[in-house]
Parts: sequence; C-alpha cells; structure tokens
Amino acid sequence: MHLSELSHPNQLHGLSTAELEAIGRQIRERHLEVVSTSGGHLGPGLGVVELTLALYQTLDLDHDKVVWDVGHQAYPHKLITGRYKDFHSLRQQGGVAGYLKRSESRFDHFGAGHASTSISSALGMALARDRLGQSFKCVAVIGDGALTGGMALEAINHAGHLPRTNLLVVLNDNDMSISPPVGALSTHLNRMRHSKPVQFLTDNAEEAIKHLPFMHGELPPELKNLKESMRRLAVPKVGAVFEELGFTYMGPIDGHDIAEMVRTFEQAHRTEGPVLVHVATTKGKGYAYAEEDQVGYHAQSAFDLTTGKAYPSSKPKPPGYSKVFGQTLVKICELDPRVVGITAAMATGTGLDLLEKALPAQYFDVGIAEQHAVTMAAGMACEGLRPVCAIYSTFLQRAYDQLIHDVGIQKLPVTFVMDRAGIVGADGPTHQGQYDISYLRCVPNFTVMAPKDEGELQRMLITAIHHDGPCALRIPRGEGEGVPLAEEGFEPLEIGRGELLTDGDNLLIVAYGAMVHPALATAGLLQEHGVRAAVINARFLRPLDEALILPMARRIGRVVTMEEGCLAGGFGAAVCESLNDHEVLVPVLRIGIPDVLVDHASPDQSKRALGLTPTQMAERILERFGAVLTKATPVKPLAV
Amino acid sequence: MHLSELSHPNQLHGLSTAELEAIGRQIRERHLEVVSTSGGHLGPGLGVVELTLALYQTLDLDHDKVVWDVGHQAYPHKLITGRYKDFHSLRQQGGVAGYLKRSESRFDHFGAGHASTSISSALGMALARDRLGQSFKCVAVIGDGALTGGMALEAINHAGHLPRTNLLVVLNDNDMSISPPVGALSTHLNRMRHSKPVQFLTDNAEEAIKHLPFMHGELPPELKNLKESMRRLAVPKVGAVFEELGFTYMGPIDGHDIAEMVRTFEQAHRTEGPVLVHVATTKGKGYAYAEEDQVGYHAQSAFDLTTGKAYPSSKPKPPGYSKVFGQTLVKICELDPRVVGITAAMATGTGLDLLEKALPAQYFDVGIAEQHAVTMAAGMACEGLRPVCAIYSTFLQRAYDQLIHDVGIQKLPVTFVMDRAGIVGADGPTHQGQYDISYLRCVPNFTVMAPKDEGELQRMLITAIHHDGPCALRIPRGEGEGVPLAEEGFEPLEIGRGELLTDGDNLLIVAYGAMVHPALATAGLLQEHGVRAAVINARFLRPLDEALILPMARRIGRVVTMEEGCLAGGFGAAVCESLNDHEVLVPVLRIGIPDVLVDHASPDQSKRALGLTPTQMAERILERFGAVLTKATPVKPLAV
Repeated sequence: MHLSELSHPNQLHGLSTAELEAIGRQIRERHLEVVSTSGGHLGPGLGVVELTLALYQTLDLDHDKVVWDVGHQAYPHKLITGRYKDFHSLRQQGGVAGYLKRSESRFDHFGAGHASTSISSALGMALARDRLGQSFKCVAVIGDGALTGGMALEAINHAGHLPRTNLLVVLNDNDMSISPPVGALSTHLNRMRHSKPVQFLTDNAEEAIKHLPFMHGELPPELKNLKESMRRLAVPKVGAVFEELGFTYMGPIDGHDIAEMVRTFEQAHRTEGPVLVHVATTKGKGYAYAEEDQVGYHAQSAFDLTTGKAYPSSKPKPPGYSKVFGQTLVKICELDPRVVGITAAMATGTGLDLLEKALPAQYFDVGIAEQHAVTMAAGMACEGLRPVCAIYSTFLQRAYDQLIHDVGIQKLPVTFVMDRAGIVGADGPTHQGQYDISYLRCVPNFTVMAPKDEGELQRMLITAIHHDGPCALRIPRGEGEGVPLAEEGFEPLEIGRGELLTDGDNLLIVAYGAMVHPALATAGLLQEHGVRAAVINARFLRPLDEALILPMARRIGRVVTMEEGCLAGGFGAAVCESLNDHEVLVPVLRIGIPDVLVDHASPDQSKRALGLTPTQMAERILERFGAVLTKATPVKPLAV
Repeated sequence: MHLSELSHPNQLHGLSTAELEAIGRQIRERHLEVVSTSGGHLGPGLGVVELTLALYQTLDLDHDKVVWDVGHQAYPHKLITGRYKDFHSLRQQGGVAGYLKRSESRFDHFGAGHASTSISSALGMALARDRLGQSFKCVAVIGDGALTGGMALEAINHAGHLPRTNLLVVLNDNDMSISPPVGALSTHLNRMRHSKPVQFLTDNAEEAIKHLPFMHGELPPELKNLKESMRRLAVPKVGAVFEELGFTYMGPIDGHDIAEMVRTFEQAHRTEGPVLVHVATTKGKGYAYAEEDQVGYHAQSAFDLTTGKAYPSSKPKPPGYSKVFGQTLVKICELDPRVVGITAAMATGTGLDLLEKALPAQYFDVGIAEQHAVTMAAGMACEGLRPVCAIYSTFLQRAYDQLIHDVGIQKLPVTFVMDRAGIVGADGPTHQGQYDISYLRCVPNFTVMAPKDEGELQRMLITAIHHDGPCALRIPRGEGEGVPLAEEGFEPLEIGRGELLTDGDNLLIVAYGAMVHPALATAGLLQEHGVRAAVINARFLRPLDEALILPMARRIGRVVTMEEGCLAGGFGAAVCESLNDHEVLVPVLRIGIPDVLVDHASPDQSKRALGLTPTQMAERILERFGAVLTKATPVKPLAV
C-alpha cells in the first residue's frame, strides 16, 4: 500500500512492521518535499514518523482520541488522516493548517498551537468518557520541552491522583524543545535516556520473570512490585518522578523502532490508570542536515532539499524587528550590567540568541515556562536588575496573571518586548498577536508602547529599561522599514508623547505601532482625492498623548484610528474613550482586527482579508467620511 | 522579652528555644484576638508560628530575603516585623493589609495574594544577587497546596537546574490548601509525612554517620552520597521527586519543634545549590476548633473565641451569590448528567461544595491549578460534557491563555462563573475582580454576561449551560438582593438581549451586573432633581444589545454607563465603541473603576472611595450633564 491510498488511519491495522516502515519512508519523503517547498515545521514531524505509525496501529481512531501537544509535529498524523492530497497547500491561505484544528479533520481531536495543553485536554476527555459510560482510549503525545510548562505539570499531578482513570501519556523525548531544553526534569529524562543498561533491564525484566521456572504467561499482579523493585534496585532513578506522581512508567524505548513501540503501547493500553510511555526520538530523523542542526531545522522557510540551504532571497531585505531588538539589547547590556534578557524557550525567535552568544551571564532561558519567567523577572527587579522579558504577544497570555499580580501591582521595572504582535501569517489563529493591546490597557502602573519602525524600537527599548516601572512594547513579525539604525547612544523618548508626522485639516489619522507607515501611505492615497489628512504616530497606548490628540481632533472634527490588534477595547477604543471623556464629540472610524479569528495565510493575505492595506483603508475612510471630506468642511464639535 | 518589644526580627537572634516558644505563645494569642475581632485568615498563620520564629532566628533580615507564598500565613511575620502595634487594624481601611505588600514594610520582600509565585520570585532575587556579586540568603516559604500550581513547578524545574544558585525552599506541608489538597504530589508528600521510621532514619542518618569510629565532626562531601544511599535503601521514596529535580531534600521535620527547625535551616544554609526543607505543620495549631475544622477556620469573619462560633448577624441576610450559584448548579446537574462543576481548590468559596456533597461524581476539584482546570474543561466539552468552571475573577487571570487558546478559539461549550467580580473588599488589590470585563471583551466566540441579582444569576446559568459555545458570567462578592429564587425550571434568557427597567426621556443609564440596582437607586435620586432617567439592565457585554441601546441613546441624547470593573476597555468602553461605530454621537459618562489599584477596605468603603455609591453617582451625573438636564432638552445627535 502506498501512503496516497491511506484514507483512514485504521487501514494501518493489518500492516506488518516492514509495511509500516515503508509507509514511514513515504511520509518522510512527502514531508520533506512539501516543507522544503512551502516552509513549515521540519524537525518535529520527522522525529515522530514511526511513533505516529506505531501508536495508530494500536488505536481505533473511529473512537480513540489522540491529542498532539502544540501540533507542530503532527504532519505525519495529517498525512495518514486524509490530508495527503491537499498537503501541498500546507500553511497557505485556504490550505492545510500548520497546527491541528478540530474544524479541519475529525481526527484532530483537540486543536493546539501553544505548548503544554495536551495532558489536561486528554484527561478531560477521559473523565468525560468515564462519566458518560463510554470506553475509548485517550492519549496525549507531549514533547520533553512542553512538559516543563506549568500546566502540563498541573495535569500530571491531577492525573496521577486518579488511579482508575485510564490515560496514556506518550512522552516524545527528543531532548530538545525549539532550543535545547532547560530544567531539572530534562536532566532527569536525559539521565534515563542515556542509561543503556537500565534500558536493557527495564525492557527485559518482565520477560526474564516470565521465564522463571515457576511462571507461566502473563505476570500476575502480585509480582508487579517485584518487577518494580528489581528495576529500582538496579538504578532507583528510572522514572522515579513519574512513578512517585502516580503514573505507571514504561521506557525509555526507541522511538524509531516500530515493533518495540507497538509492543509497549499495547502493554500500556492493558494497564489501568495513568501510564507514561517514555519514547526517545531524534528530532529531524532521516534528514541529515536536520538531525545535525536541530535548532536551525525546527521550522524552515522554503529551502533546497539537496543542500539544506534556504533559497537566497531575491532582493536584500531590511533586518527584522527581532534581530534589531537582539542587537540593541546586547549593546545596552554591555554598558549596563543590571540589564538582563529572559526568554521562555524562544531564543532564536525573539533575537535573544544574540545576547546568549555575546553576554551569556546576562541571558536566561527558563524553558517553556512563561509564568515563571515573568515572576522571576519581578524578583530580579526587586533586587536591582532591569530584566527584559522577550515573549511573543500570544505567549504572554500565559503569564497574564503574573504580569498583573507580580509586576503591575508592585510597579516593578520589568520590560516586556512582545514580538509577533499583530498579524503573524502562516501560524494562524492560535498565534495571532491580536489581544495584547486590549489585555494590557487595563493594568495599572504599566507604560505600553509600540514603535513605528525598527529605529523607534531602539529608542523605546532604552526608554523602557530606564523607566522606573513596568513597560511593555509590541513589535510586529518580520522585516523592519529599512530605516537607519543607531549603533550606540540610543536616545530615550519622552513617555506619553506621540509625534505629528504630517499635518492636515480635514481628517486626523492616529496610528499605533506597525500601522504608522501604512497610515502615511493611506494619507498619500487620500490626498489624490483632495483629502488633507494629518497623521499622528501615537507611540504610547498608555499614557495616551491626549495633549497632542485631543486639540487636533477637536479642530479637525473627524478621526481615524489604525492598529494591528483587536478593536474591542483596543487602541481605537482608547482614543474613543479619551475623546468622549474630554467631551470632544467627533466621529471616529476605528480600523483594526474585528471580532474574528484570523486564519493562516501570508501576513499580506491576512491584512487584505481584514481590510488593512492602505488602498482598502483609504476606501473605507472615503466610504465613511466621503461626503463631508470632499466638501472639506470641518465638522463642528458638539457642545455638551 | 515580650512580643510588643520586638521592633526588628533580628532581635530574635540571641533568644533560647524556650524564649522563642514564649514569643510564639504571645503571637498565637494576639493572632487569635485580632482575627476573632476583625476577621481574617486564621488557620494558615497559626500553623507557622514556630516555623517563622525558627527561620528568622537563622536569618539576618537586614539583608536576607524571605518570600511568603500567598501571604495569608504571614500574620506571625507581620507581628515580629514592626506591625504589632497596628495589628488591631488588620484588613481595615488604612490599616495593616491581609496579605504582604512591599509598600507596607521593608521586610515584605515580595507582595502576594495569589498562590504559587514564591519560588519564582525568590529565585529571581537569588539570580540578581549572584549577578550583582552580593551574598544574602533567599528563601521561599510555600504551602503544599500552592506547590501544585504550575508556576511553582516551573520554578522548581528551573531552580533544580542551577546547582550553583543558593536558594532555600521551605515546604510548609500542612496537608491542606484551603480544602484538602489534590494531586499526586500531595499523596507523595503525605506518604513521606507519615512514614515515621523514615523520618527517624532521615533525622539521624547524619548523626549516626558522624559517630562512626573513623568520623570526626562535619560530614565530608564524599559521604553525602552514602547518606543519601542509606536513606534511599531504607525507603527509596523519601523526597525522590525533589531530589530527582535537582534539589537537596531535607525532612520531613516537625514544624512545631523550634530547635529541630533551627538545626535543619542552619544545615540548609550551609548547603550549596537549591535546597528544599520539608516541614510538617498543623493548620490552626494551638486553637482546638481550628485544628479540628481546618477548612472552616482557614479564614473567618469575627467570632467568639471561647465557642469558636461566628457572631450571629444582627438581621437575616439574603443568600449570597456563591450559595445561589451552588444550589442552582446542583439542581441543573441533577437533571442533566452532562453538566459538571470544576473548581481549582475553592470549593467553599465558590459554592461548589454544595455540588461536592450532593453529586460527587459531577464535581471536580483539581487543586490550585486554574490553567489545567480550564483546558481539562475544554477536553470534557469536546466529548459531550457541559463543564462549569467556578473560578474567581482574579484567579481566572491565571488561565487567560487557556480561555483564549483552548476554549475560545475552539468555540467549546464551557461556562465560566467568575465569583468575586468587582470590588472584593478586605483582600485588597491582588484580589479585586476588576479586569475580567476588559480581558474577556476581546476574545472571539465568547458570550459574556452579568446578572443584576441572584434571580437573574439562575437564569444566566442555565442560559450559559444550554448555549453551544463559551460563556462567562460574573457575580459579585457577598449577598444578593433578596429577590425570589426559582426552585426549578430555570428559564433561559435570550442571548444578547438586555431589558429596559424604567423609561425616561432626558438621560439613559446603561448598567451592567451588580451596578443595575445602584443604577435604579441613582435614577431615583436624580428624579428628585427633575431628571427622568431611563435605566437599561444590559445583561450581556458580548453581544451588546445594540437594538435596545442605540435607538434610546439617539433619542435621549446622553448616556451614563455603570460597571464594577476597569473603565479602560470595559463595559462603558463597549457602549462608547458601539455608539461611535453606529454614528450615534452622544456624550457618555462612564462610571466604573478608574486606572488605580483598589486598596483593602470594606466593599462599601472602597465603593465610596471610587465614587460608586448612588449618591455620588447622581452627583457626578448632575455635574457632567446638569446644565442641559435641568433644561430637559434632549441633545440632537450630530450628523456625520
């Protein structure tokens, strides 16, 4: 059977190990073809080809439920659950999603994108099953990186307390998250993973006991403890953490040996209560470049399969925001030993890898643990450091309480640099950085800002670090505007002060962050229609520059706000609230992300879909204000 | 020395065990006196009297830092760090706070209120200390309940990975959180706690080895492993989880034996790297009623010290929102086996203890683990259950990402009942439920509502449970309005439909949730000034009843919004946005919580401080709109 003939994962049931291996090779081939052409996650999926096949051979996917943590390793799953034909459209608008989605397939039992949610959701399914008297299997597949996330540990703690709730956790231990994993748990796993004699003993203990002269067949329950004792006696550390936490631990087993995995999974399915099967896999397995550089090949844009190298870009691009942030932070850290950078397992994504290389003593990677990262930063700030937490907008949601309770309420000088704020493109709804403006705006003591370009990012970073209180600044995904950058002597901005970029007399555009340049472009387009628009770069969301905005709004009589974030409670809302509170009753057209989930697509496609291109924005403005704008008569504010 | 003469905790240094025990008795006495008079947390503080004294005898609090997790057990700490004289003012407006606050004392090294933050913050302090070349000690004191919170486990995982960073974690194991603790970790601790022979062996291993003929004095480092092996050999489980995670584990020791604790803490201070000292304490120690009923005496309103009974209230009060919620949920669960209730260690606070008693199979307490609670609920919803998560507004901040990523994006039918939404009173800034309106308003797919009274709560609960998507409803702290309650046949509301309570023609008040009755009272007061105010009970924040609000706003020409939540991005903001989007340009006075932290006080005092009493609101309305209101001429909306 060829992979293309697989329309249902249950078709795997009859196949021999050799046949499964052949399917595995085809999966790997197709995986590499598509990701090298259109980009996507590479290493994670290649590492679990055999795991996926072995697991699915032991399950009935018409009834059993599998939750893949994060979902970036689920391309093999997608290829054998009916998405082979469409797989070429991976991560493209209207095509197959890069993560899991319940709406995409009935085999995607739980959607994901963020790490560490799988054990909680699979346990929820198991409890529902038992409550409703059903009998399917529930499986969570989680990586060793994701296991360090607090909620995964909360779930382990709860599941371990339920000895009659059948749940299988497959620990996909590739000894990596995106970067090498952090934490004592990982050291623990690593110790197990590399203790060969233990593995032998563990694998063979049951067999050995079975062959004792007085034994026949299955191991009777009374001897379970004997087996455990034998194992403990040999090396008491194997699986100790999980066993102490109430799980039956099996492993470590070879994650590329299908037969061994099938045997172990079947044994796990026969075991009552929570079971953890520890599977040792190699990230990037089967593609030499990816096995060698596991960080570099975690996710990739299109590349040449033969050389493993990304295709050269057609024209030189300006440096990305992340890189400018990383470089600037290094320079600030060089001059000020109190400044440190903190990442939650996202060194390369945030640009903090530059700090790691340049000044490792001022760099902290806490693993996938955003909550801990933020409160640890608060503790550091208490004792005189100036921590900079570089966390994607979407992942900072994970630390919202810490941001309020530990940083905001205590008014501690912690700087948050929220990368990937706004439209993120191919990663889709789970990753859009669309909520941070709304969720930060209500937190007392915070200063919140967004630069119009990478040059202003440099100035905002030094502003935030020098400020004696919490600051957050958001930067978009991707390249900057190509403006000149400072090499040193970054000049702080005055807090709460925006800038008037162009003046005008019949429309006021107030734009925030990444929308400032599109606002200028929109103003240019409007000029062709005789509209003279003033454009303000707001710079600060909190405090809003009311001294600049209010008199101009009053004079001009109509306002447009632009933001790459949710309209509900967002930047435009802040402007509306302020105008209203100060009795400046002028109409405001708020442009931003409406009350929708933004699907995967290229960032440009998403912006077009949301009406956020300069052309579309100009049209929307003319539609709303056209009649008065062409007459160019300012509207008189209403006396209250 | 008497407790009242203690002005600095370092004065404890010279005291003998007997003298410390005497101080301990005085602390306990004063603690009981004040809490029985003014209310507050009782059991937690009584349990750590000796722990506090022993720990502080081994520390130099001019330099060393102690972080008390949650802070509700820190009354003994307060009594010996300069707050003895003011302790009578506990939890009262302007008095000593019920939790820790950096602004209250230089010995409150890190503020708290929510659980599980202490290890992260103490580790941050330790890393700052090492970075800046200083040498003080950093200690986190955390309860066994708080240890199940994901961020504490994240911090353990990180700290265990830093063998050269000195950090002491004192595990205050009272075998309780507010309710009996949940989870495998607690079982693990309990096993250790009650294994007497192990305790003996552990306590004496070092001494025993020291007295071997060839040994003199201190244990040399080479023999550390020997000691560990001896212990493991005896019962391999003691402290295994912590030791595997990189901590040196010491204990369990008796948390009411000062001398034993001093010895152990001193040994811990001499040990390099992260150390966990496991201290077994009794919650409520020294007050028989509290020792017996540890749940009931966790926190108390004023009570008779002799009988242990709360003073009877002067007049009968209507049932509280939590109780009505609990009772109603029980009735719904009885009829619909798909409905389940979930709490994160807050059974009594949320009213879910009623469900636990009535229908234990439909009740889930996951421990202090809000993130897991929410995603587990999402998993349950996938498989056909209708979970109701009862989580305080302030604690739901902990699960903000799960609420967006697992429930909202997947549009799963999970109901959130956010208790203590709005002003909470004596618990202060860490517990105010002031952010939920703002942080929920931007999440797609959510239906968000708030009842005007406990009768409407019943209807909203059934509405939410029947709705095929995520719902959140907020209820205030305290008693209801005393309205009649339904016994069965709860009638669902139409989603997105508010109600007009009184009509009027020169002012429109739109109120949300707990502000509806005050809005009616305000309208009554305004009537005396000739103002005929219409009052709308909005019921729904999302979707807002624009069909009701907009035409009335247009007709009447001026609007007041009322909410018990942050103004920034809140309910009033939603009304402003909607009016503006629909080109209804009328002035809006938004009444709610401004951009401040709300300090501890009685709820009535807080509301007065914020200008939220009907009298104050009527004054504010007259101040803003007085001139036109007395003329009673509706303002004409502006043509755009």
